[in-house]
Amino acid sequence: MKSLKRYGASDLLDFCTGILTRLDVGEEAARLLSDTLVQANLRGVDSHGVTRMGIYVERIRRGLVDPRGEPAIIRDTPAVALMDARNALGQVASYRAMRLAIEKAKAVGTGMVGVRGSNHFGAAAYYTMCALKEDLIGIALSNAPATMAPWGARAPYMGTNPLSVAVPAKGRLPIVFDMATSIVARGKIILAAQKGESIPGGWAMDAEGRITTDAEKALEGAVLPFGGAKGSAIAILIDVFAGILTGAAFGPHIGDLYRNLEGRQNLGHVFAAVDPGVFGDTDEFKNRIAQMIDEIKGLPPAYGVEEVLLPGEIEFRTAERRRREGIPLEPEVEEMLRRLGREFGVPWITPVGP
Amino acid sequence: MKSLKRYGASDLLDFCTGILTRLDVGEEAARLLSDTLVQANLRGVDSHGVTRMGIYVERIRRGLVDPRGEPAIIRDTPAVALMDARNALGQVASYRAMRLAIEKAKAVGTGMVGVRGSNHFGAAAYYTMCALKEDLIGIALSNAPATMAPWGARAPYMGTNPLSVAVPAKGRLPIVFDMATSIVARGKIILAAQKGESIPGGWAMDAEGRITTDAEKALEGAVLPFGGAKGSAIAILIDVFAGILTGAAFGPHIGDLYRNLEGRQNLGHVFAAVDPGVFGDTDEFKNRIAQMIDEIKGLPPAYGVEEVLLPGEIEFRTAERRRREGIPLEPEVEEMLRRLGREFGVPWITPVGP
Repeated sequence: MKSLKRYGASDLLDFCTGILTRLDVGEEAARLLSDTLVQANLRGVDSHGVTRMGIYVERIRRGLVDPRGEPAIIRDTPAVALMDARNALGQVASYRAMRLAIEKAKAVGTGMVGVRGSNHFGAAAYYTMCALKEDLIGIALSNAPATMAPWGARAPYMGTNPLSVAVPAKGRLPIVFDMATSIVARGKIILAAQKGESIPGGWAMDAEGRITTDAEKALEGAVLPFGGAKGSAIAILIDVFAGILTGAAFGPHIGDLYRNLEGRQNLGHVFAAVDPGVFGDTDEFKNRIAQMIDEIKGLPPAYGVEEVLLPGEIEFRTAERRRREGIPLEPEVEEMLRRLGREFGVPWITPVGP
Repeated sequence: MKSLKRYGASDLLDFCTGILTRLDVGEEAARLLSDTLVQANLRGVDSHGVTRMGIYVERIRRGLVDPRGEPAIIRDTPAVALMDARNALGQVASYRAMRLAIEKAKAVGTGMVGVRGSNHFGAAAYYTMCALKEDLIGIALSNAPATMAPWGARAPYMGTNPLSVAVPAKGRLPIVFDMATSIVARGKIILAAQKGESIPGGWAMDAEGRITTDAEKALEGAVLPFGGAKGSAIAILIDVFAGILTGAAFGPHIGDLYRNLEGRQNLGHVFAAVDPGVFGDTDEFKNRIAQMIDEIKGLPPAYGVEEVLLPGEIEFRTAERRRREGIPLEPEVEEMLRRLGREFGVPWITPVGP
């Protein structure tokens, strides 16, 4: 196994923020976007980390994303709101929408905020984890450009529409679930293509509807939904909420992040929060979650499994290690960032290891 | 293929209602419960149809379910409520909770009603479809007795916790999704065991954690979650909402429907409704859903597939046919119902075919 250079999280955060501010992204927005990327890297979700800087910069530069965009609340009721991101950075719109859902949940028990006119928001868990600090359950879902064929079809229609749920626990790591509705996140196929690696069979079909292990061909074809017909239906339903309900684009009408460099994405998201306190006592809820976590971790493992893991547990361990040891970057990702640094006059950072 | 006797839906409804009223279930509740069963049969979901009469009758008779139970609303806010079913029939509590969620959604945009102290509620789609008549999106989820091992474990912890979502469409069949979070509904394994049939490999593990095709052994072991680790996490999260949030039992603390004939189930459910009108125009929403349906059905089918189907489409077709031709009953199910008829003095019904 090759040894990758590792960089400090705060160094990467400052570097990315520096690039973005030179692109007319406001200081606060630049720092937020960079934080979502670095947090994804810390959690080991490299497909949604700083590797995305290249395409984000490209889209801002082409005027496809408004770096100074100000999302507007166009409907607002005690439990529900609708935001038009007005083509702002997906992270800016999403963070504000999640904050609003949290405020609503604290006021009336549940909050649900739809977002239209948005852009790629990164890893969904960033937003749901915001709810944890307030002892709320956080929910986030988004549609995504069409890359996945509905069950029974061979042409892409839905995106790998992600779903994240975060649940606070007393004295334990929270449960943090964040999944793509594809068998794998499309970002992993992108990363494999960038690295010239093949992908396991069963991840994707090529353009003709045949299963392929060629990452490049998979990107031209369709990713397969997780869990067969059930996962396919869940992906469709996420688009019903994130795309159709919010008035955003849906299905194949969403602009592709990489392949459509002429138009806006018009993505849609939904953020929701639920206050356990409205159903009973928040402390009791968190205690019961801790009990569930302990009970599940205490189950006998399946054959060949060392330890039963809760959703998010691996990511917390990775984050702990990477905070200490630094974030390993693939040479391609490092080169892309260095190039951006040269172009925008932001000095590249010093590795912390190896 | 053997030809089964078919019975009229309304005859079966009257027959089951007759049995239940003789067990001290109120007329309205008896008719509601029977309707949920017959509707499941009509939709082809025989695992949740009249085959359940045997165990429902048994549990009422043993005093494990209160046939005259009156669910109580113990918390009530504009957007959220909590119901204690007080050990009433799961169908009675669930129908009332869904109605309340619908009322709340019509008033404030979203409604979420948790239920504790409940019993088996049948097929979840019965409740979500109630929202369709009001042009709302309906959501239902429930926990269930522990039969499924979390990903990485070999002992049962979660139930096959179902999730249903129903979405209204303009001039098209609605999207009606109803799934168990297991690879298959446990009811299908029960039905296979009753019929002495084997099950496909990959559905379940035996008590020692080995994949089995023996339906009886599968019922002693653990059903596998759909979609691997992702489906396992979704099942856990459904229990977080349906069990832990509502204050019901959760995980292995839920009383088994069949194996625990001494205690209550204390199941939990969550019902929610969302009014598309709060985000924009309901008609536009329904038109966009119709557009999505047409677009998905217009996709080129995968190899070997005749037609791309939306969630619920097969069930609507089956219901149309069975309304016309009658509901086929397995001999074992018919014999169980006949036996109940003799015992309670309710005359058995005449088949409509073949």
